[in-house]
Amino acid sequence: MKIAVVGMGLMGGSLCKAIKHHTNHTVLGLDTDSHTVARALACGAIDRAIVPEELVECAITFLCLFPDTTISFAREHVDCFKSGSIVADICGVKQAIVDALEPLFLPTGVRYVGTHPMAGREFSGFAYADDRIFQGASFILTPTAKTCPLALHTLHDLAESLGFGRIVTSTPADHDKSIAFTSQLAHVVSNAYIKSPTLWNESGFSAGSFLDLTRVAKLNEEMWSTLFLLNRPALLFELDTIIGHLQEYRAALADGDKDTLRELLKDGRIRKELSLIGDATPPEEEKEDGLATHKQLD
Amino acid sequence: MKIAVVGMGLMGGSLCKAIKHHTNHTVLGLDTDSHTVARALACGAIDRAIVPEELVECAITFLCLFPDTTISFAREHVDCFKSGSIVADICGVKQAIVDALEPLFLPTGVRYVGTHPMAGREFSGFAYADDRIFQGASFILTPTAKTCPLALHTLHDLAESLGFGRIVTSTPADHDKSIAFTSQLAHVVSNAYIKSPTLWNESGFSAGSFLDLTRVAKLNEEMWSTLFLLNRPALLFELDTIIGHLQEYRAALADGDKDTLRELLKDGRIRKELSLIGDATPPEEEKEDGLATHKQLD
Repeated sequence: MKIAVVGMGLMGGSLCKAIKHHTNHTVLGLDTDSHTVARALACGAIDRAIVPEELVECAITFLCLFPDTTISFAREHVDCFKSGSIVADICGVKQAIVDALEPLFLPTGVRYVGTHPMAGREFSGFAYADDRIFQGASFILTPTAKTCPLALHTLHDLAESLGFGRIVTSTPADHDKSIAFTSQLAHVVSNAYIKSPTLWNESGFSAGSFLDLTRVAKLNEEMWSTLFLLNRPALLFELDTIIGHLQEYRAALADGDKDTLRELLKDGRIRKELSLIGDATPPEEEKEDGLATHKQLD
Repeated sequence: MKIAVVGMGLMGGSLCKAIKHHTNHTVLGLDTDSHTVARALACGAIDRAIVPEELVECAITFLCLFPDTTISFAREHVDCFKSGSIVADICGVKQAIVDALEPLFLPTGVRYVGTHPMAGREFSGFAYADDRIFQGASFILTPTAKTCPLALHTLHDLAESLGFGRIVTSTPADHDKSIAFTSQLAHVVSNAYIKSPTLWNESGFSAGSFLDLTRVAKLNEEMWSTLFLLNRPALLFELDTIIGHLQEYRAALADGDKDTLRELLKDGRIRKELSLIGDATPPEEEKEDGLATHKQLD
């Protein structure tokens, strides 16, 4: 079938390459940047470049744009998509996008599904596109009660064929809560970590832990500030949570209270160990506190 | 020459293996755990097991114990070391150890040098000892005005022969300030990060950034709480710094202030990029704020 990819940056470009590499589908690429289109054609990442009016040919369209552009492109070109075809966005937040796109496409017969391929690199643009970023990664589907089950199934199978390691389904709201913790918070903390003035004296002192903690400090500030603001309550909760915990270690340290400091560290160590063995059984008192639930598709 | 290693845990055991692997020196091992001694002998990590009274044979002794045990062992066995021989500790904080050991050894003619091989794993004990952990790592030497230059030179050359990538010299105080930022803070932040209740719902949502941020949450709480308390002012400074920065992002997010949020992220991104290209030139206004200086030995 014909699959369109709208926006061939790091993610869209990688998706083009992955579809070409792993399937026999025809890939049609759309990008406003003519150099990107030329590069994608030259390296065989796409079979053909298209304009929005040609989206009507496609069985599946992936919108691989920034959140605001995803919504504005869909609104502007809503009549270009074929009724019955599948449209999926790949934004890193889902509730805001699903809220905007689902009511837009429902009356047109287009089958919209929110997705989030959990992959990325510290670089942007087609030049860094690489289908290997999806190998073993999670592909999140965020259907609602109105999502076509067949469209969901089609995307599930496609993601599997592209090499994703886990296909997970979640509500848009639960996705956003989890992603605030596992991805957005990581980017804020990493970006905050690097700001100590001691950075300018760290030459020779930066071991693996420092490099790990600061790797994703190198981020696209325009994209991430947009994503953060689209997920405000969940990210605020995570920020308040980690700030609160950091203040506990700080207080124990300031008090010279070794017993408390040791217990605080032990608690974190045990949680990490539980998460490593996949035994996501929370300590008894937290069983009711979980913020989000998901199930993994078979 | 004969080199003694006192304490054959992860670090001491790895050091034994590295010396055997890279040099022709004789390695004598001392540990209170007979199983560890037996294992070290069986795998050829040491040539011979010794008791403290045999330390007198050795040209160099590495004390590879926890900070408090390093000091108590040295005090208890100060008469066992040969005058003129070199004794080096490998503790992750230096001022407190140097302050205790230097006046202890100076009157005996033993040439004490504080060192810090910046390597480690998320596991403890001889079972995980691996000489490869030192490959390319930094070896920090923290001499004082009273340190014998020749002893410093001997340890420098030995570290180089063991495969360390950089040999850095620093004052004990400056070492402790840098290590508070590049290592201790990483362990606290990682340990705090894992404590969100959202952890129990992250299945399928944990991409590389989450794994990076939480890797060192798995730590030895006894050792790290001791190290943190021995470096209180520097670690408090780093904790206050990151908490202050996190509160800036938090405020911008709560206010829905995208311009400020973008600028905060951009500032972090630029600092990370500068640190990556090794251009440790701070922004103009911070040039006087640096907390520590080191030089790299040729």
